[in-house]
Amino acid sequence: MPDLCFLSATDLARQIAARQVSSVEATRAYLERIEQYDEHLRAFITVDAEGALAAAHAADTLAGSQRTQPLHGVPVAVKDNIATRGLRTTGGSRVLADWVPERDAPVVRRLKQAGAVIVGKANLHEFAYGGTCTNVEFGAVRNPWNPEHVPGGSSGGSAVAVAAGLCAAALGTDTAGSVRLPASQCGVVGLKPTYGRTSIRDVLPLAWSLDHVGPITRTVEDAGLLLDVLAETPVRSRSTEGIAGLRLGLPRDYFFDSVQTDVLEAVERALEVLHDLGAILVDVEWPAVHLSNSATWTIILAEASAFHRPWFRAHPDRYAPETRANLELGELLPAGDYVQAQRVRTVLQQQARDLHEQVNALVTPMLAISPPRIGQTTVEVGGKVKEINPVFIRLADPFNLTGQPAISVPCGFGRDGLPIGLQIAAAPSAEHTVLRVASAYEAATEWHLRRPPLLEEARR
Amino acid sequence: MPDLCFLSATDLARQIAARQVSSVEATRAYLERIEQYDEHLRAFITVDAEGALAAAHAADTLAGSQRTQPLHGVPVAVKDNIATRGLRTTGGSRVLADWVPERDAPVVRRLKQAGAVIVGKANLHEFAYGGTCTNVEFGAVRNPWNPEHVPGGSSGGSAVAVAAGLCAAALGTDTAGSVRLPASQCGVVGLKPTYGRTSIRDVLPLAWSLDHVGPITRTVEDAGLLLDVLAETPVRSRSTEGIAGLRLGLPRDYFFDSVQTDVLEAVERALEVLHDLGAILVDVEWPAVHLSNSATWTIILAEASAFHRPWFRAHPDRYAPETRANLELGELLPAGDYVQAQRVRTVLQQQARDLHEQVNALVTPMLAISPPRIGQTTVEVGGKVKEINPVFIRLADPFNLTGQPAISVPCGFGRDGLPIGLQIAAAPSAEHTVLRVASAYEAATEWHLRRPPLLEEARR
Repeated sequence: MPDLCFLSATDLARQIAARQVSSVEATRAYLERIEQYDEHLRAFITVDAEGALAAAHAADTLAGSQRTQPLHGVPVAVKDNIATRGLRTTGGSRVLADWVPERDAPVVRRLKQAGAVIVGKANLHEFAYGGTCTNVEFGAVRNPWNPEHVPGGSSGGSAVAVAAGLCAAALGTDTAGSVRLPASQCGVVGLKPTYGRTSIRDVLPLAWSLDHVGPITRTVEDAGLLLDVLAETPVRSRSTEGIAGLRLGLPRDYFFDSVQTDVLEAVERALEVLHDLGAILVDVEWPAVHLSNSATWTIILAEASAFHRPWFRAHPDRYAPETRANLELGELLPAGDYVQAQRVRTVLQQQARDLHEQVNALVTPMLAISPPRIGQTTVEVGGKVKEINPVFIRLADPFNLTGQPAISVPCGFGRDGLPIGLQIAAAPSAEHTVLRVASAYEAATEWHLRRPPLLEEARR
Repeated sequence: MPDLCFLSATDLARQIAARQVSSVEATRAYLERIEQYDEHLRAFITVDAEGALAAAHAADTLAGSQRTQPLHGVPVAVKDNIATRGLRTTGGSRVLADWVPERDAPVVRRLKQAGAVIVGKANLHEFAYGGTCTNVEFGAVRNPWNPEHVPGGSSGGSAVAVAAGLCAAALGTDTAGSVRLPASQCGVVGLKPTYGRTSIRDVLPLAWSLDHVGPITRTVEDAGLLLDVLAETPVRSRSTEGIAGLRLGLPRDYFFDSVQTDVLEAVERALEVLHDLGAILVDVEWPAVHLSNSATWTIILAEASAFHRPWFRAHPDRYAPETRANLELGELLPAGDYVQAQRVRTVLQQQARDLHEQVNALVTPMLAISPPRIGQTTVEVGGKVKEINPVFIRLADPFNLTGQPAISVPCGFGRDGLPIGLQIAAAPSAEHTVLRVASAYEAATEWHLRRPPLLEEARR
């Protein structure tokens, strides 16, 4: 059932509600693909076939009635750091290998109220503390476009599940790019809403002042649909307005330097598309944005260590070595450094406000490199060898510090046939502008229609 | 001119605007009293006789016209951690003994635009980092009700200047009670607005996430008048509504235990007055408020050390020994502790919201003890010997963490004839409720009309 499994969530919900296809049929099709591919891809930590089929049956009994919902009967995956009632929630860690929450996180409750079927819990970098998803406890997640490469992270399982047709949409969390980066590296759409727009309650925190829950989907329309379902406050989630006359800012000084050639070429082509659609491209300056990366690391180190302290003191051996090293580092961080990092944040927020006096949205590459190989820890960018993690989050984290909404949409393919993402960000609360630009770009291109050709290699 | 010097700011402005008295006359009267008393009281670090008289002349030329302002020609003092253009701003420290700012802080600009005459810069605890005002560089500030006792702090000079009739009103800053506590101990009114209501720009920070600028005045009406002038956002600052039917919460468990007998008796009598005015007194619980004191200290230690780091590393010897010890302690604080303190803050904010579903305002003692003697470092409360600083801020700091507006109004006299204050707090942005309760109480009592009888001892 490959076509059914690559429908958009919007189309699938519509077809199920109209009884053109049943939710049970769709759920079975996804479960079969999971069975076939996921031993290799490792997108899921837990698959809830029984629960999903029961929810699908329930959805089918309401299909065709007046009581259908926006995600009626649509199978979705939930990142495994988000609490699901009665369904194991591990955080991707041995520390919580047996935790079965007693209640759903508000975002999960909202999904279920909107009719979604939870098909399973997606794999991630342990406790979302990293971007490669080489999870030592539950297996390294593989990129469906090239299984020797990482899918990005930390919501790697969520992005792979959507990209490989193992579910219709997924939830991820984004502290420094963790929704947008794997979406970019897997050729799908990832949306980080405005800070506070979606609830982070009953979501295992990485760094609570930077954490966001956001959707990973096959289309921009789907991202809007899920945002609508997840939002705690009303949001304009659809746009068919076009972008003629819209001012798009290009903060070239930071976001376009040190970017791999194939990535830069794809992004420049995307800018031409936006220009042809009538957008006005404007070079802008974001003076203090170079401080973003170290401010973000400082905040994550401090907040993650504060949260994990009791567990970490009791069972340091249950954490992966990389996570352990980060938590130890965080324990040694002086409070003054954290305070300075928060002050950088205030400065960046002020500067972002100034930028949005000049332009409606910012457009940048999502990530300076194409997905590295599994096991690779350094990468060469701009003639210099760098650690992967700071390179991963560099172009994503400014928008976590400022709380601005930002999306990654597919904009081409680079080295080793791996996907490239375009990032679009707007002022806080202006998700509609982000979706408007992304929709217009998507409608003018076909990158989002491609399916991973190498996926067959992963067949069981 | 004792009567002129004890007019309320509201009345003085009215009389100057109506040409019943000139601003020059009022300014001269205050300058004379400063000359007579302040060598002993040490309320001022810098007196700007020349600047004040020039501003007073200018005010007098407009008096009687349509162009008079709410504080027309009224002499006020500004705490010396608030930048004043062309007028030395020391922060109460040798570190900045020669700093002459190039611009006014926005709160000073607002005062001047409202017609105020800046008579001088008020003494304080060094960098606002303590509550006794025993300033080693500029002299220990004395309580005008009993010069052997401290005035409270850190805005001690501001409170003494108002209480002793050395100016009509003053600005202070409040990080953990520093406006309300000296007001309480000097028998005047001190208002801490909602966090963010008044600008803290160009104010030397103690802890930026807790710092507030607020007025110290002779009457509640004056506090409303100054709030109106200082506020960055519109605020209802007057109230003549009475308090019949208003629900006042008494969080007895934390705020009324460990309180000195004379203080408790005065507060209980004040509660009877409020009851007789028709208010409904309700016992309430604030479950986590006992965590407030350590959360506040943790945040202050971290943020103060972060701000002072460059100066402190360059010139540790220029700080007073007590400040130095605190800054050293702050440098050793782990970031995780600071993060936990900020989480306590979030909890207290939620609980305060819950409380204000039940009651319109909270009423408590301002301070558990009467002003200690100068040089005293410990105090006995509830049968236990305790350090003064934590006792000082204990009942004040919860409202800095939550950002709620809170006022201290005089409610009696205790040991050694020293003043006692009543604290009234309301929900964030509800300054009008704070002022409404305080006005009604003040109108029913005469504590605010008393003048320090021992002041004559301080005459030059």
